[in-house]
Amino acid sequence: MQIAILLYDGFTALDAVGPYQTLAPLPGAETVFVAERTGPVLDDNRVLSLVAGRSLAEVTHPDIVVVPGGPEPDLTNEAVLDWLRTVDATTTWTTSVCTGSLLLAAAGLLDGRRATSHWTALDLIKQFGVQPTGQRVVFDGKYVTAAGVSAGIDMGLTLAGRIAGDTHAQTVQLLIEYDPQPPYDAGSPDKAPAELVARFRPQAATPQP
Amino acid sequence: MQIAILLYDGFTALDAVGPYQTLAPLPGAETVFVAERTGPVLDDNRVLSLVAGRSLAEVTHPDIVVVPGGPEPDLTNEAVLDWLRTVDATTTWTTSVCTGSLLLAAAGLLDGRRATSHWTALDLIKQFGVQPTGQRVVFDGKYVTAAGVSAGIDMGLTLAGRIAGDTHAQTVQLLIEYDPQPPYDAGSPDKAPAELVARFRPQAATPQP
Repeated sequence: MQIAILLYDGFTALDAVGPYQTLAPLPGAETVFVAERTGPVLDDNRVLSLVAGRSLAEVTHPDIVVVPGGPEPDLTNEAVLDWLRTVDATTTWTTSVCTGSLLLAAAGLLDGRRATSHWTALDLIKQFGVQPTGQRVVFDGKYVTAAGVSAGIDMGLTLAGRIAGDTHAQTVQLLIEYDPQPPYDAGSPDKAPAELVARFRPQAATPQP
Repeated sequence: MQIAILLYDGFTALDAVGPYQTLAPLPGAETVFVAERTGPVLDDNRVLSLVAGRSLAEVTHPDIVVVPGGPEPDLTNEAVLDWLRTVDATTTWTTSVCTGSLLLAAAGLLDGRRATSHWTALDLIKQFGVQPTGQRVVFDGKYVTAAGVSAGIDMGLTLAGRIAGDTHAQTVQLLIEYDPQPPYDAGSPDKAPAELVARFRPQAATPQP
């Protein structure tokens, strides 16, 4: 089983690393980080680079694809969109975190499907014929989309459980000690102070704080 | 304000990226990834490399130090331990995630202090004169330690709130959509099935599932 995690200039690091940390332990899995070119790929903060070990051309039949989001994913990058369409033809699971679902939608893979994205991008994704939901992790057939950034951890654990069973996923959860205790209850637009939500709601994608 | 996140061979990626994603947005902060040598540093799964932009010698006065953990951090690496002791003399906050606290303890920085670590390492850290607690995030003076792997997100948000105020930290939480909904309740040894806990408790550090 091959898991391919896509990297591109301006991706959000936790979007990629949350699913990585939860999916990589799948029994028999090989995980690869893939980008247009091999080598370091810079994140949205222009601070951290993750290294892509494979180019798009080198990854032709992944079983699972993970597409992270970023504040402004390039929805016109035909090299990436073509790769997504090509590998999706044979994936078992095609997944995204945050605005990564915009890339899947731009590739035409989510037409008419239920999906989610970063909360600030839910209006935008409708324009691609997607039915956005308010859920944190959305399964529609083999397409699994997660809400913003940190939701990739919940997506990864949920998918790990579907693939390898509850005991495996619980083991992963125990070993990454995922017993979240956020110091605030402001992690969704339904829960955060209204003035914060209003500050970001009209803006596109995922602005920086 | 400079935030220095330490990388070393065999670190756990989410240990570094959780605090990174939550601390980097601090107003006026410059975040750097630092290692013995600049360049790619390979993680514990031998799959993912994060790029260290600075060498230890180039980072002499960080305001915040973050030490991620890993299954077997080298507690005899004097280059790293010396650097931790040196920079700790002038930090405002010295922090760790998971078994990163073993490195702080091995450097002699946690003598007699309350601290935490990955749940499988709590017995080991006692041997360094540390008082382990069952809390997920522990503040003792300027020393802030987090439990295993994913606890670095809670640590980063908590510290961001202390430094820049609740509204800033809530903004970060909202933008990373940190409204955790784990599919299982197995994220701590108190909650996971007893047979899973027993399987890992006697072993050292953080074995792989």
